[in-house]
Amino acid sequence: MTYVAVVGGGDAPDADLAAAEEIGRRLAEAGAVVVCGGLTGVMEAACRGASSVGGLTVGLLPGDDRGAGNPHLSVALPLGLGEARNVLVVRSADAVIAVGGEHGTLSEIAFARKLGRPVVGLRTWTLVRPDGEHDAGLLVATSPAEAVDLALRRAVRGRGT
Amino acid sequence: MTYVAVVGGGDAPDADLAAAEEIGRRLAEAGAVVVCGGLTGVMEAACRGASSVGGLTVGLLPGDDRGAGNPHLSVALPLGLGEARNVLVVRSADAVIAVGGEHGTLSEIAFARKLGRPVVGLRTWTLVRPDGEHDAGLLVATSPAEAVDLALRRAVRGRGT
Amino acid sequence: MTYVAVVGGGDAPDADLAAAEEIGRRLAEAGAVVVCGGLTGVMEAACRGASSVGGLTVGLLPGDDRGAGNPHLSVALPLGLGEARNVLVVRSADAVIAVGGEHGTLSEIAFARKLGRPVVGLRTWTLVRPDGEHDAGLLVATSPAEAVDLALRRAVRGRGT
Amino acid sequence: MTYVAVVGGGDAPDADLAAAEEIGRRLAEAGAVVVCGGLTGVMEAACRGASSVGGLTVGLLPGDDRGAGNPHLSVALPLGLGEARNVLVVRSADAVIAVGGEHGTLSEIAFARKLGRPVVGLRTWTLVRPDGEHDAGLLVATSPAEAVDLALRRAVRGRGT
Repeated sequence: MTYVAVVGGGDAPDADLAAAEEIGRRLAEAGAVVVCGGLTGVMEAACRGASSVGGLTVGLLPGDDRGAGNPHLSVALPLGLGEARNVLVVRSADAVIAVGGEHGTLSEIAFARKLGRPVVGLRTWTLVRPDGEHDAGLLVATSPAEAVDLALRRAVRGRGT
Repeated sequence: MTYVAVVGGGDAPDADLAAAEEIGRRLAEAGAVVVCGGLTGVMEAACRGASSVGGLTVGLLPGDDRGAGNPHLSVALPLGLGEARNVLVVRSADAVIAVGGEHGTLSEIAFARKLGRPVVGLRTWTLVRPDGEHDAGLLVATSPAEAVDLALRRAVRGRGT
Repeated sequence: MTYVAVVGGGDAPDADLAAAEEIGRRLAEAGAVVVCGGLTGVMEAACRGASSVGGLTVGLLPGDDRGAGNPHLSVALPLGLGEARNVLVVRSADAVIAVGGEHGTLSEIAFARKLGRPVVGLRTWTLVRPDGEHDAGLLVATSPAEAVDLALRRAVRGRGT
Repeated sequence: MTYVAVVGGGDAPDADLAAAEEIGRRLAEAGAVVVCGGLTGVMEAACRGASSVGGLTVGLLPGDDRGAGNPHLSVALPLGLGEARNVLVVRSADAVIAVGGEHGTLSEIAFARKLGRPVVGLRTWTLVRPDGEHDAGLLVATSPAEAVDLALRRAVRGRGT
């Protein structure tokens, strides 16, 4: 089974929400588990999409209250680590898809790159290295379908079916 | 949904394994999610019991390898935190059941008590406070059925169905 | 340099505070760094003792506010992990001394035992294994001097002077 | 006392090392504590600079081996959390200075921005938001002196002297 983290803003524009919902649905249709930070916005949209077709969704919540999780989580885990849970969202996934996003999303992209997880961005941050080169390791997708396709083809840690 | 952590030795005597399997099964029959450290022994037995009746099981793995998880996990999350993940097993649960166990299990009992999670022990550690009093907050069960019953009645953070 | 964690209640009886202060002083006189949870009670007393003779003291605080640290810390680090920081107090030490204490202290003793750190108790918890045997690995001291002596002789990770 | 994290590559070009050493020295001269990831490169250079003038330096090491810390650390804490310790480097600081760097450094910049810590970059990443705007919250310095000056003036959590 492949686990894909979908990361993005908790308060996101409609276009990002629609993209995240399609991404979640396509991941679930491909049999992948959706991992996320468990809250609103892109996280919730991805879970809504996945659960609409019976997919499994996991939310790693920053606080101590399971009830803060969005209603489309199969499993909601309040870890009580604050934003440090971003590291765990990435670590527990085989690939990461970033949709839009703010600094929390940026931290997840950075950790994914650091840990060698493939990361696909859709309308997200552009990263320019100290030497002026773009970070080509952050793959750029132009549609939800392409994002899912790239993420699943690059996912590094599946363990068979 | 109620989440119950089942904690105990990764290498456990047969009686503990049988008890853990029954506990997992009973929890799943009651609609609870089983959370554990994801590895062998008591953890695996509880997951086997839960999954035998279609229950949901979550493993928070200490290392970076999802494949280290036991085969009865619905969701296997390699967190890469080592034994610090014991804190998260307890934090993400509404109640804790300890079966036998070594020092890792003791750490989970201690954290559960510290965090105010109800914790039920079956043939596990006995804790004597500095003043010589037994720690009465560690509830003692004499059977798997009683352990599950106590844990579910005391569980603190369910959020409805 | 050897690092020794001194753990115990944040609200402790006078006898424990006096013992912790002497322990901190003796550790500093021996050139050891005192690591603790950074708050009041036994933690503060140990730091007071160490700093009274110019020793180095480190507090790993549970919250986000450095100002919550006791006034005798050389280094106060607000980690924002809540009680999960207990694991880090133990991990960053070469030996652990427990004075009295409640469930947080118990969690630190358990982690120290799990991680193979020598742990010395002074009027602290008594641990009885599932099989009825006392946990002989929790060394018992009867005085602050003996606690410090045992901890320093067993400390596992010093790296020379 | 003000705590400033100095973050950057563990394997860095000479110009970055020279800058980090000057930054560490200037921070220590101003009475600030230098916090870092404890290893080589920019981390070690900053510690060398600070310790050359008697400053206090703290290293939060990713592994379990205190000996992996660079030789200029006043306090070396092996936390055993892997790269998740990057979050703690940022959380325990009142301001962050980034010199050059790779993806680990990027993760620290992202967390600093997320947590509202002022962050000053010297020849480091350039961040372009999803909407095409540069992230103006990442302050740009053109010299070590300017980086230190900016960081100390913006530092958010000093507690008096």
